[in-house]
Amino acid sequence: MKIIVDAFGGDHAPDEILAGSLAAAKAYGVQLLLVGDEEAIKARAAALNMDISGCEIAHAPSVITMEDEPKAVLKQKHDSSMTVGLTLLADGKGDAFVSAGSTGALVMGGTFIVKRIKGIKRCAIASVLPSDKTPFMLIDCGANVVCEPQFLCQFAVMGSIYMNRILDVASPRVGLANIGVEETKGTPFVRDCYDALRQEKAIHFIGNAEVRDIPAGVCDVVVADGFTGNVILKMYEGVAGMLNKNIKALFKKNALTMLGALCVKGGLDEFRKKMDYKQYGGAPLLGLQAPVIKAHGSSDARAFQHAIRQAKECVEKSVVDEIIRNLPPIEPAAPKES
Amino acid sequence: MKIIVDAFGGDHAPDEILAGSLAAAKAYGVQLLLVGDEEAIKARAAALNMDISGCEIAHAPSVITMEDEPKAVLKQKHDSSMTVGLTLLADGKGDAFVSAGSTGALVMGGTFIVKRIKGIKRCAIASVLPSDKTPFMLIDCGANVVCEPQFLCQFAVMGSIYMNRILDVASPRVGLANIGVEETKGTPFVRDCYDALRQEKAIHFIGNAEVRDIPAGVCDVVVADGFTGNVILKMYEGVAGMLNKNIKALFKKNALTMLGALCVKGGLDEFRKKMDYKQYGGAPLLGLQAPVIKAHGSSDARAFQHAIRQAKECVEKSVVDEIIRNLPPIEPAAPKES
Repeated sequence: MKIIVDAFGGDHAPDEILAGSLAAAKAYGVQLLLVGDEEAIKARAAALNMDISGCEIAHAPSVITMEDEPKAVLKQKHDSSMTVGLTLLADGKGDAFVSAGSTGALVMGGTFIVKRIKGIKRCAIASVLPSDKTPFMLIDCGANVVCEPQFLCQFAVMGSIYMNRILDVASPRVGLANIGVEETKGTPFVRDCYDALRQEKAIHFIGNAEVRDIPAGVCDVVVADGFTGNVILKMYEGVAGMLNKNIKALFKKNALTMLGALCVKGGLDEFRKKMDYKQYGGAPLLGLQAPVIKAHGSSDARAFQHAIRQAKECVEKSVVDEIIRNLPPIEPAAPKES
Repeated sequence: MKIIVDAFGGDHAPDEILAGSLAAAKAYGVQLLLVGDEEAIKARAAALNMDISGCEIAHAPSVITMEDEPKAVLKQKHDSSMTVGLTLLADGKGDAFVSAGSTGALVMGGTFIVKRIKGIKRCAIASVLPSDKTPFMLIDCGANVVCEPQFLCQFAVMGSIYMNRILDVASPRVGLANIGVEETKGTPFVRDCYDALRQEKAIHFIGNAEVRDIPAGVCDVVVADGFTGNVILKMYEGVAGMLNKNIKALFKKNALTMLGALCVKGGLDEFRKKMDYKQYGGAPLLGLQAPVIKAHGSSDARAFQHAIRQAKECVEKSVVDEIIRNLPPIEPAAPKES
């Protein structure tokens, strides 16, 4: 199996990307096709004493930056590591693509270069997040800020397949992110989504997922439009990050508190492990014709390694084929929801 | 000053409501007008050894429950403690009303019984929340799931006045809750709000508040439509609650971890205090002709006492008059935003 790697995407590229990729190649036995400025890759590998002799390299002189418009991936920066990597994937030169670069560009490039599965209206960013119980998938996390109810039904189907195949959840419970459990809650759009999801036979819909209960783990797949999903994702990160920072500072205050830290170290490490999003890898872009994984922009080597593991699992467990097989039949002239 | 109290609103009514009200009367020197079933109030006060001889009581035999439709407050349960209390406020029989009952009913009753300030399009639920730096106001937290940009401008004006008058913030920084700082981010509606807020002269608008940064304390007033605001509020509560539960369990595990808890007790208590939403009281309903405070449904005596303190401050600091004085001139035939 060959994983195509965007060696220049992310805050810590290329060093951490290279380190994580090599670790993944060793740990999971995958082949690597590194995409980026060839000289720079070789120079960094030499400087960091990394042996990349077993890797293929595809030269791509430019890089999509966070300042670039997402559409730059299509034309203006057609020689970027992301564009070249996605094109290699579309051409069948590798089995999956992993990038820690710009999410917007990856969605745009994935949609127009790798292309959507026939019948899929929109691809979605799907994050697997920790909860107090078992991990859950949040889909869409931000690819589509404006959605139609049918999009959310497809997100629910794709998310259910992923949770079943990759995380071995039997009959994943799907909840609609909403501001209350009652079906009358939410905006008219959210209520339309509720009705559409209820009629979707390919999923196990359990109703609204009251947002307050999401971190406690009320379901296996939380569906939302990309705006709401992104708000949920970022509040999760923001609150957890702020609290974690304070707890850390608290333990580091003085000798006594450091002793306190030692006393709870075992349990704290265990809890940190449970909450560690890095272990779940990155966020798959579901709905494309081949596996594309968005690693977190701040990925270090370990996070990137897990993103490659996740790409490998998507290939092995035929997530794309499963989505194609399980897609509800396409209604040729479905009336547009108002 | 006389505070009208819904003695039968909330999960722990009437016991905790009575206890908190009496504590507030003692601490802040306010008079109380307790609304609810008179016999029941007297019986509970006697059973709990509370001296309510200094309080007025207005009899209201029924109660708005969480199962009631919000509109029940207007007709079906016109003899409820909430309806009677709001009517007493509208009639000038007290200076402010505090209830821990149904939010939806309180918004409905506030709007149609107390009534909105002339020119205010919608009243909003405004919560003061802790951040890593100073507390901030989130407005709207759920009163209006569907909004127009003009509503958000008014929320921003009202929130700024509140933060200035009650929390002494000079020139409160207003941020629009969004999924990125760039002005091109978000849904078409959110971008319209951005444009409207930028033109609003009565506020200090600093642009988008990236949701991830909200808990860190990026601004003093976060404006959002009621759906998004409620999602933010509930993720804050949900994530903080889940993490807090785990940290507590971790410290209680065994003798060693309990020793650890002792070592960090001082810092932990200090942090808990900073994060304790109860100290900020309840959520004011801003935009009404008289102060109405929504205390948390799960309010205990202490939380309810602070909600009464907050009501008192709203009266003393003339928040309603300030909103009237600072409202931007009403545009008589503003074109409807599409």
